[in-house]
Amino acid sequence: MFEEIKRPTLVVDTDKVRRNVLRMKERADRNGVALRPHLKTHQSRVVGRLFRDLGIRTGTVSSVGMARFFADDGWDDLTIAFPANLREIREMDELAGRIRLGLLADNPDTVRALSAGLSRPVDLWIKIDTGSRRCGIEAGDEAGLRAMSEAVRKSPRLRLAGVLSHDSRTYQVRGPEAVAALYREGRDALLSAEAFLAAEGWPDLRASFGDTPSMSLVEDWSGLDEARPGNFAYYDLQQFVTGSCSAGDIAAAVACPVVGVYPRRGEAVVYGGAVHLSKQSQTLPDGEVSYGALFEMRDGRWTGFREGARVRGVTQEHGILRLPPELAESLRVGDLAFVCPVHSCLAADLLRPDTIYI
Amino acid sequence: MFEEIKRPTLVVDTDKVRRNVLRMKERADRNGVALRPHLKTHQSRVVGRLFRDLGIRTGTVSSVGMARFFADDGWDDLTIAFPANLREIREMDELAGRIRLGLLADNPDTVRALSAGLSRPVDLWIKIDTGSRRCGIEAGDEAGLRAMSEAVRKSPRLRLAGVLSHDSRTYQVRGPEAVAALYREGRDALLSAEAFLAAEGWPDLRASFGDTPSMSLVEDWSGLDEARPGNFAYYDLQQFVTGSCSAGDIAAAVACPVVGVYPRRGEAVVYGGAVHLSKQSQTLPDGEVSYGALFEMRDGRWTGFREGARVRGVTQEHGILRLPPELAESLRVGDLAFVCPVHSCLAADLLRPDTIYI
Repeated sequence: MFEEIKRPTLVVDTDKVRRNVLRMKERADRNGVALRPHLKTHQSRVVGRLFRDLGIRTGTVSSVGMARFFADDGWDDLTIAFPANLREIREMDELAGRIRLGLLADNPDTVRALSAGLSRPVDLWIKIDTGSRRCGIEAGDEAGLRAMSEAVRKSPRLRLAGVLSHDSRTYQVRGPEAVAALYREGRDALLSAEAFLAAEGWPDLRASFGDTPSMSLVEDWSGLDEARPGNFAYYDLQQFVTGSCSAGDIAAAVACPVVGVYPRRGEAVVYGGAVHLSKQSQTLPDGEVSYGALFEMRDGRWTGFREGARVRGVTQEHGILRLPPELAESLRVGDLAFVCPVHSCLAADLLRPDTIYI
Repeated sequence: MFEEIKRPTLVVDTDKVRRNVLRMKERADRNGVALRPHLKTHQSRVVGRLFRDLGIRTGTVSSVGMARFFADDGWDDLTIAFPANLREIREMDELAGRIRLGLLADNPDTVRALSAGLSRPVDLWIKIDTGSRRCGIEAGDEAGLRAMSEAVRKSPRLRLAGVLSHDSRTYQVRGPEAVAALYREGRDALLSAEAFLAAEGWPDLRASFGDTPSMSLVEDWSGLDEARPGNFAYYDLQQFVTGSCSAGDIAAAVACPVVGVYPRRGEAVVYGGAVHLSKQSQTLPDGEVSYGALFEMRDGRWTGFREGARVRGVTQEHGILRLPPELAESLRVGDLAFVCPVHSCLAADLLRPDTIYI
């Protein structure tokens, strides 16, 4: 099945994707929460259709171009979960004429510019910062929330849809308790912003939340209206270390041709570097730094991690593998190594044009 | 000039590129060393033509696809400075029918497979590891060198061109003395491998060397036949920290739309994240971690770094800027920030289709 692979190639196990999506969909349904998965993880129409086959019709994207990519494949309800980029206002307006479009803002200037520049109605979400300190109005910043509320009130084309947050702190911790504690803190902050705006005269807002660790590890989603996990479709080494998934849940691998073997060093080099796997690294529980794990393969599928093996470094095109002695002795140039990426979203962004679906 | 920029966009100052290339070309000429610059830094036909206009006709690339890209634009003498990937043997053979092609090997198995699979002559370089521990035969490994020599002797289609190394250790140190010490160590190791092979019956081999810090900081290249620096065309923050260039030499910037301003935090967020700048970070002399510096702009050109400003973090699409107070107060959504990438090769790989040349 893999004989034809010539270059670093993303391989997606669609059975695993389906299982991951079904599990998340069931949890969302049980909680009565709408699932609006982030499509940036895969940026794949094949996986997008698999989502739709499982009844998921609303999606999240991270750029105007990505919204267009999925709109062209039949998605008609998308939120661009990135602060509205005013330099693409014409493109957003065009999209709003084709699909139900959600936009984010955390700044009255953005609201006014959208209101002046859009000719079609859109859903506006106020982006709330529940602790990540990336984008958003800090949840307790009442003056900031009030200024947004007033700016939106003067903007008839913007339908205020609700408050939205993404708390990336959960990606930095390990284990269900640590994730759940941050989840509760983030969710409560989001709901406090929602309650403040209700008191300001917006009683019907929705609360949209979602990071993959929380949505994977927390059963009870009460208080939320919408969840937007993304990475769960593929998972990856980072999520494995966080505890969001088992090794068997990871649905994406990068097949890398072996180009150098150095048994004396216990190492090998693959064609598969920073422009394929990305430069994202992960500190492992044993303190070592990894740019990817190595999968154990059986019958053309990966079954778990190869113990003692990791990508110890990447340069532009090279991945340097640290290997257990028996593998360092047996690997040959021309073989394929199947790497579990640290961050599947970045590997998929780099490699998606030539994905193989199994 | 930049009003039309909508998304993160690579901007290349061709005056600076020309100056950087001329400086390197003059040094190579002074030393009587052939310059075979690495084209992976820019992967740009525009910059490639600028090289050719300055009399540079031989190039280095890091993949078969990149060789094809430049061969299609008139380059007829290219070395793929990456261990020959046996899964692309047909593509290499096809290229060898169009241009003078150099390939690398560090393994007798690779030599035998190339010999059996290629129908056309190529230049073969033995890759030497002078200290980086990535690819190559360790310079002092006489048994390894002898095995290569014997494998090549049985392969009439492979012309043994010489020994080649890239010592990436110079990218990890700071200042001309530290770089020069590593340069001498690496060069001497390469020349010792050349001398060993001469004694084995290969008297006319060439020595190809080249990393940007060494070639930028060391005046005397004696003993070498060919130099392959790449990054010097653009330079970047990493090279600035290493000491290979001044801020005024850096020829590439990423123009990033501002999408969020947080004056209270002294921060802003731009559209320009890991999929635009890459995840490569640089520890600054003051101990802070940077994913990019911010350029000071005057009359549409960058003139140096904005003091106290840096990209403190990147996620998939977001770059988080730490700013001096006056800039945090004055920046507005919709503005452009010009980011100096940590590693211009990776940013160019991600952004090159829409490059603006000024």
